[in-house]
Amino acid sequence: MNGESTPEVVEPPARKAMGCEPEIKESNLKRLRRIEGQVRGLQRMIEDERYCADVLTQISSVQEALRAVSREIMRNHLKHCATSAIRAGAGEAETMYDELIELIYKHNR
Amino acid sequence: MNGESTPEVVEPPARKAMGCEPEIKESNLKRLRRIEGQVRGLQRMIEDERYCADVLTQISSVQEALRAVSREIMRNHLKHCATSAIRAGAGEAETMYDELIELIYKHNR
Amino acid sequence: MNGESTPEVVEPPARKAMGCEPEIKESNLKRLRRIEGQVRGLQRMIEDERYCADVLTQISSVQEALRAVSREIMRNHLKHCATSAIRAGAGEAETMYDELIELIYKHNR
Amino acid sequence: MNGESTPEVVEPPARKAMGCEPEIKESNLKRLRRIEGQVRGLQRMIEDERYCADVLTQISSVQEALRAVSREIMRNHLKHCATSAIRAGAGEAETMYDELIELIYKHNR
Repeated sequence: MNGESTPEVVEPPARKAMGCEPEIKESNLKRLRRIEGQVRGLQRMIEDERYCADVLTQISSVQEALRAVSREIMRNHLKHCATSAIRAGAGEAETMYDELIELIYKHNR
Repeated sequence: MNGESTPEVVEPPARKAMGCEPEIKESNLKRLRRIEGQVRGLQRMIEDERYCADVLTQISSVQEALRAVSREIMRNHLKHCATSAIRAGAGEAETMYDELIELIYKHNR
Repeated sequence: MNGESTPEVVEPPARKAMGCEPEIKESNLKRLRRIEGQVRGLQRMIEDERYCADVLTQISSVQEALRAVSREIMRNHLKHCATSAIRAGAGEAETMYDELIELIYKHNR
Repeated sequence: MNGESTPEVVEPPARKAMGCEPEIKESNLKRLRRIEGQVRGLQRMIEDERYCADVLTQISSVQEALRAVSREIMRNHLKHCATSAIRAGAGEAETMYDELIELIYKHNR
């Protein structure tokens, strides 16, 4: 892949995952590369003025693919970060419950 | 308009949109290029083993961005393709209702 | 105006549907009565302190049932109210597109 | 109309919550009684052949209300049932992750 392309997103100071299983990481990267390809496919569909319903169906398929990545990351989050916080004690656990509820109900629709 | 460079990905026989306003088309392309950048940003986050909750929040933001594109395309679809079918007569209208319901309730969650 | 026992929802001045097929109306009423029963079932589950995951699964099943009602009403809306507006002329049509987009993207998640 | 005690839902053998805070329980019951009222309000709207868009908006408001109950129950679930399982050991924890992922990604949309 070309690493020279446009600077896209500036991330805040990076917090790290507590644990990250190599197979999960690799499969998520693979999924995200496929999603990137799908998004480029969507651009071509728009350029070609493809039938709206076909574009909408394709967008929906990208959304499902993102949801599948999200699901794997949430599983990893529960298994490592959340478990570690919940086992650490009441204070850490309470903060983790808030964070999880926010993730599940605000961000995951 | 004229095919100087042929697209590489083979899509099914392309149905075309009935109408496509140039400003909408341009703004959707711009959004999709930004989404492509966000998806590459997600890949870097996974590579860097960034904190799961931050990745999940970022995925959710990509999903909202896709939803905004979907919204614009649906508006265009209603305005051009759906309106044309609904004005054409009962048969075309009926097929369009089915298609819309499928798009709204199956694909748009 | 007010039913004997429970003062629940005060509705704004009633706008009417343009058309309402009797079978659809009856089947929606039947579905909503079943949903009412499910909501009472949920109250009993909470009173009995039933296992949270079972309550959550039941809530999700009520939501799917509501979505099925919503789907039927949207179909009726497209077939009657939306079609009538779209055939009436550009002004009415434009107002209907806005309303539909609002319903689909704001209210239907 | 006002059936005394209609047999609605046959529940499977009841599993119990690990913990249930009395204020949460009371507030969830209150919310569910309000939701029951809203569902009866929806029945009246259908009977009166109210404007479809108004019915759809009201359905969406019931769904948001159910989502708020679901959110409180999920928080309770994390705090009591999930925490207990996660602290109990690897086997129980693993089963709980699966259950949570199922609840979050299959049932919560």
